[in-house]
Amino acid sequence: MLYPNKSKTVFNKNITYGNRGMDLESLINKSNLYYLENDIALIYKKPTPIGISDVKYRNNKKIIDKAYFKEKSTLDYNGIYKGKYLDFDAKETKNRTSFPLNNLSKHQLNHIYKVLEHGGISFLIISINDIIYLLKGEDIKHYIENNNTKSIKYDYIKEKGIPIKLGLNPVLDYLNVINKIYFKEN
Amino acid sequence: MLYPNKSKTVFNKNITYGNRGMDLESLINKSNLYYLENDIALIYKKPTPIGISDVKYRNNKKIIDKAYFKEKSTLDYNGIYKGKYLDFDAKETKNRTSFPLNNLSKHQLNHIYKVLEHGGISFLIISINDIIYLLKGEDIKHYIENNNTKSIKYDYIKEKGIPIKLGLNPVLDYLNVINKIYFKEN
Repeated sequence: MLYPNKSKTVFNKNITYGNRGMDLESLINKSNLYYLENDIALIYKKPTPIGISDVKYRNNKKIIDKAYFKEKSTLDYNGIYKGKYLDFDAKETKNRTSFPLNNLSKHQLNHIYKVLEHGGISFLIISINDIIYLLKGEDIKHYIENNNTKSIKYDYIKEKGIPIKLGLNPVLDYLNVINKIYFKEN
Repeated sequence: MLYPNKSKTVFNKNITYGNRGMDLESLINKSNLYYLENDIALIYKKPTPIGISDVKYRNNKKIIDKAYFKEKSTLDYNGIYKGKYLDFDAKETKNRTSFPLNNLSKHQLNHIYKVLEHGGISFLIISINDIIYLLKGEDIKHYIENNNTKSIKYDYIKEKGIPIKLGLNPVLDYLNVINKIYFKEN
């Protein structure tokens, strides 16, 4: 794995979907590649921020000798779709009754709010109880403002979230859900 | 420096602007922080993509033991401003007569074109002859399509580019130029 994700250590690393043998991040990356190659959208995963403590030169090539993972203040994915700015993250939880909010740093939550304020589209893709939901930033904000809690109840995710179906191409067509929510398509 | 930039090795590392003692990247990062803190725009520098060859655990903390710099296929900066998607890069050259196009990978050039196709705003901030220009993606595309060349002539940059003034807060107000070009403000 090229980009180990610190936050994943608290999650199940082995959730696979159907017989695809892919984790949630791989499903999204593969779908983004499909969107890119078919000129549907331009969405990239941001590289994990890395702090470099030591750089050496070997055969005139710069090599990182010591480095560490830094905390993220934004979300993993952003890009453009139908002229709109998109910014989101993907999270998996084994918890069956709620989505623990310690999966999101305070900076990341604040980032979601800021994207909304600036007129962008922000959301989370949450895998819980073997279903992959898209939960709008607006709904996350509403829940947190009205519930002094450390997690989002599964009932709320079930009520407000929209399940994303697994398919062939793309494997996880979350933009289809975005169409329905933000572009009022059926 | 936390994120050594491979492409910079061919450039002058010591260009400073006025008596600010900052390089171009620092000027932009500082301006982005100003835009962020004043709720003007949400623009971040993407972390340099790093390939990790070896990860070790020390005191239960994940530490990167061997890593290398990967080639970029997108631009350094992206974000949202006035509801629009922004995607750009910053380049410095010591060359006085032209901007060498080997500063941009083919992937990066293609990325500029794709952002434009999807309705986003893409441009380069180019420092040449002690002037910092904003050159629109559309103008870059037009030049490259009409000139089979390995560089963009300074005359063209002077004609089409818009100089960005250095100020106090923000130090490099490139969004002021974006206002004039894309939002028709004066």
